[in-house]
Amino acid sequence: MTLISEHDTRERILVEAERLFREIGYRKTTVADIAKMLRMSPANIYRFFDSKKAINEGVARALMGEVEETAHAIATGAGPAAERLRELLISVHRMNSERYVGDSKLHEMVEVAMEESWDVCVAHIDRITATIGEVIAEGAATGEFEAPDVPMAAMCACTAMMRFFHPQMIAQCATKPGPSIDQMVDFVIAGLAPRGKSVSKAG
Amino acid sequence: MTLISEHDTRERILVEAERLFREIGYRKTTVADIAKMLRMSPANIYRFFDSKKAINEGVARALMGEVEETAHAIATGAGPAAERLRELLISVHRMNSERYVGDSKLHEMVEVAMEESWDVCVAHIDRITATIGEVIAEGAATGEFEAPDVPMAAMCACTAMMRFFHPQMIAQCATKPGPSIDQMVDFVIAGLAPRGKSVSKAG
Repeated sequence: MTLISEHDTRERILVEAERLFREIGYRKTTVADIAKMLRMSPANIYRFFDSKKAINEGVARALMGEVEETAHAIATGAGPAAERLRELLISVHRMNSERYVGDSKLHEMVEVAMEESWDVCVAHIDRITATIGEVIAEGAATGEFEAPDVPMAAMCACTAMMRFFHPQMIAQCATKPGPSIDQMVDFVIAGLAPRGKSVSKAG
Repeated sequence: MTLISEHDTRERILVEAERLFREIGYRKTTVADIAKMLRMSPANIYRFFDSKKAINEGVARALMGEVEETAHAIATGAGPAAERLRELLISVHRMNSERYVGDSKLHEMVEVAMEESWDVCVAHIDRITATIGEVIAEGAATGEFEAPDVPMAAMCACTAMMRFFHPQMIAQCATKPGPSIDQMVDFVIAGLAPRGKSVSKAG
């Protein structure tokens, strides 16, 4: 019973923090603001999170967790690997765009998380890369893809999508010339296609 | 004669500006500083560049021009297209790393150029992309590559390299997990390899 309500309190703090970050911005939100909205003492918040940075990490982890869940659901769905990979890559782009670029206040939170809590970002990138790897491995098993080194292929596919995945790059490149998300996904999927067998290496 | 010496003065201003940007940083350097070092009046500098922004664009264009020249020299060299493309992509990465990341003062100048003079950056990216396209077109002509749409393939190859080309991404990712430049180039070149002909689409 105590455990459940402690979990609930933790969740309530994160939900309220996210709401305030969206409404007035990350930098302007104080732990006292969050406490006041929840009608609790700042001391109580510090029982759950030892700093505003820890609250930000919790909010960032929850937002990133939703993207990871969506990616996982697509990866374990039905259909050809290439189609699932396409849907996965486009969904990560769309969710990151909506979360971090459409909402400029949340973007501030993400920037701080990327400066202060890079390990949270790295863990997220690792999980998305692993999920991409699952789809690539399935495609390689059926002959749809050719990927002798699946983790490497997944890491490169994820890196190739940086313009469409990385919050700062999404924001910076949104109005700049470049490939569309569909064209970029085509290129990545082409990189995973089985090679022609009769082509000898030049040189 | 007048034209030559005007050209020389322009060059001298750019060389001195770059030296000061490297030494004391872009933001701290004033047009008066540049004028003083060259023993000329600020008014004379304004005859050639109507603002510090214009000087920065001139310096940025010169630095980017060197990368473009190196890329062009590699593209028009001898050897299989894949080898030239590899050398080109690695050279752009190495030059951008040295220029904009190894030298943190110059990095400041680049950041300002990317904020204030994005068209200069776009023109540079266009030229590098066009040079990549030349190599891809040659590879496609000999059957070394498969690229039905060369400009699109070049744009996607360039975009896929963002982690290794973009000054901010080079700086941010230098110590982060991810593929090496060689592994990333392998992935991009794999994306250009001729497809297997007998593989039917699953689905």
